[in-house]
Amino acid sequence: MLKVYGDHNSGNCYKVKLLLTQLAQSFQWVNVDILKQESRTPEYLEKNPNGKIPLLEIEPKVYLAESNAILHYLSEGTPLLPSDRLLHAQVLQWLFFEQYSHEPYIATARYIVRYLGSPPEYAKALAEKRAPGYAALDVMEGHLTSRPFFVGARYTIADIALYAYTHVAHEGGFELSRYKRVNGWLERVRNQPDHVPMEPLLVSERAKS
Amino acid sequence: MLKVYGDHNSGNCYKVKLLLTQLAQSFQWVNVDILKQESRTPEYLEKNPNGKIPLLEIEPKVYLAESNAILHYLSEGTPLLPSDRLLHAQVLQWLFFEQYSHEPYIATARYIVRYLGSPPEYAKALAEKRAPGYAALDVMEGHLTSRPFFVGARYTIADIALYAYTHVAHEGGFELSRYKRVNGWLERVRNQPDHVPMEPLLVSERAKS
Repeated sequence: MLKVYGDHNSGNCYKVKLLLTQLAQSFQWVNVDILKQESRTPEYLEKNPNGKIPLLEIEPKVYLAESNAILHYLSEGTPLLPSDRLLHAQVLQWLFFEQYSHEPYIATARYIVRYLGSPPEYAKALAEKRAPGYAALDVMEGHLTSRPFFVGARYTIADIALYAYTHVAHEGGFELSRYKRVNGWLERVRNQPDHVPMEPLLVSERAKS
Repeated sequence: MLKVYGDHNSGNCYKVKLLLTQLAQSFQWVNVDILKQESRTPEYLEKNPNGKIPLLEIEPKVYLAESNAILHYLSEGTPLLPSDRLLHAQVLQWLFFEQYSHEPYIATARYIVRYLGSPPEYAKALAEKRAPGYAALDVMEGHLTSRPFFVGARYTIADIALYAYTHVAHEGGFELSRYKRVNGWLERVRNQPDHVPMEPLLVSERAKS
């Protein structure tokens, strides 16, 4: 059975859980607490030398890292990844956009606020995430002006990847209310069959641990 | 004919040029000078709303952004992208590693040093790139201990993506001499048929412009 090493409150890990659920594929979840440095132990680094979650164990001792590479691997041959060459390329374009222009600002702002409890020494780093984070949301808003989903006319893993941290962007201090198209899209993603929500983040518990 | 919008000194753009050359595919190069804000003009943003290079124009007015999505698109069905499902997934894993854990430190350090001329106000940002940049190089060194290339036994687009900024990491102040395996791999990449070097960066010209 597939095994996922992850944290239930991490958007990158939630992507994998959401996809596997929508593909009706069973999996075993192994919790890895990054605040307790569980992704930096010698045992974990043996599995993923880059020390990050999520990590997919495809079969015993065969591992695949990087959330969006995992999404691509799991969705190939399903309706969630278009086989058309151009649409497939556009899905990958949005997956790279998410990891380069979106996640480093929107996810890490949330990490500073909700995992670390906004310590003063992170104030400048947090402030610096605002402009590029909003720039990513602006790009999304513009793209969704004429489309229901990110690629083609259908829900794909590009939507799963972008939904993961966009729908909790407010937890990192981003004001989402001004993004009308993004909000409509978030609602469409939530209405997909077999959608599961991300587990609520227990701020006080994480900040204390 | 394929059209590439890019900057000859950008590693992300060089990836595309190197791949197209090795695939013996002809293309037209349209120079975009990021220091002159040419990727932020209304005309360019019409093509790529995220305002980044490289950008591939597949056919008139059909664009594909994100360097690694472009590599994947262009190499599908060629020996540079394995068709085996697991090897293919591993290629994508390294492409995402490159954009998330490598490029933001190793490429941007080079940008601060060689494009911007290391202005004092960037000293702290530059210093903060050292540890994660070396961490990425450490991961690469470890992976190459038992392998000639990043995925399988052959040169793939994972090597092209990682070569682009690794081979000029010293231009951003990274000390590469301690990475014996990485150096051997750089040499193997350079020895591939139809390899073309990145154009030398004319520091003074860029810093002045």
